[in-house]
Amino acid sequence: MSQMPDFSVLAATCPSRTSLARIANKWTAMVVSVLGNNGLMRFGDLRTRLDGISGKVLTETLRDLERDGLVTRHVHAEIPPRVEYELTPLGFTLHAPLLALCTWAEEHITEVLASRERYDVRNG
Amino acid sequence: MSQMPDFSVLAATCPSRTSLARIANKWTAMVVSVLGNNGLMRFGDLRTRLDGISGKVLTETLRDLERDGLVTRHVHAEIPPRVEYELTPLGFTLHAPLLALCTWAEEHITEVLASRERYDVRNG
Repeated sequence: MSQMPDFSVLAATCPSRTSLARIANKWTAMVVSVLGNNGLMRFGDLRTRLDGISGKVLTETLRDLERDGLVTRHVHAEIPPRVEYELTPLGFTLHAPLLALCTWAEEHITEVLASRERYDVRNG
Repeated sequence: MSQMPDFSVLAATCPSRTSLARIANKWTAMVVSVLGNNGLMRFGDLRTRLDGISGKVLTETLRDLERDGLVTRHVHAEIPPRVEYELTPLGFTLHAPLLALCTWAEEHITEVLASRERYDVRNG
C-alpha cells in the first residue's frame, strides 16, 4: 500500500520549509492580498499599490510566486508588450490567510507600538 | 469627535508594515505554532523543535516577538536560572493564522515542487 510521505516545516531539510519561507513573507502577503482583491494587474499598477517596493524586489517576488505556482504571468502580444499577473487557483487558497495577516497588523499596530515602547523603556 | 487613525500595510511608512514584517516570517510562523501547541517552553526545547534554527536567530526572533507583545519571557530565580517562553493573549490570536500557513506549506508542497519543476524546464 502506498503511503503519503510526511512533510514537516519543523524538519530543517523538509522541502515544505522552503514553501513556508515563500508564503510567510511580507511582500508575498501584500502581493497575494492585492491580486486577490483586484484580479489581473499590470506590473506598474502592482508596484504603485505596494508603495515603496523596489522594482527588483517586486520582480523577484512575482517570479518566485510564479515558480511556486501561486501566480500566473500573462504576456499579451502587443506593442509595447502588455504583461499582467493574477493569482492561480492554488495562490487564491492563500488569499484569505495572508489578507488576515495584513489586517491583523493594521488592527493591532496600536497595541504593538505600545508594547514596543514599554519594552524599550524596560531594556533602556 | 476623536477619530481612529487609518493604518495600511500598503503605505511604505505606515508602522503596521513593520508589524506585518515581524509576523509574516517563517521563524515567527514556526515559533508561534509550536508555542501555541505546547504552552510554556524553554529556549533549548524550542531550539530542538525548530530543527536547524541557529541560537542567534532564535534569540533575535524571541526578542522581537517579546518586544511586539506576542511572547512573554519568564525568568525563574533558580541556579542555573530557568527561562521559559509562552504566547501572550495577543500572540495567541496569531496562533491559528500562522499554524494555517505551516499546514498549507506541508499540504501543498507536492504541488509546489511540481510547479517548480515545470517552471525550471520552461525557463531552462
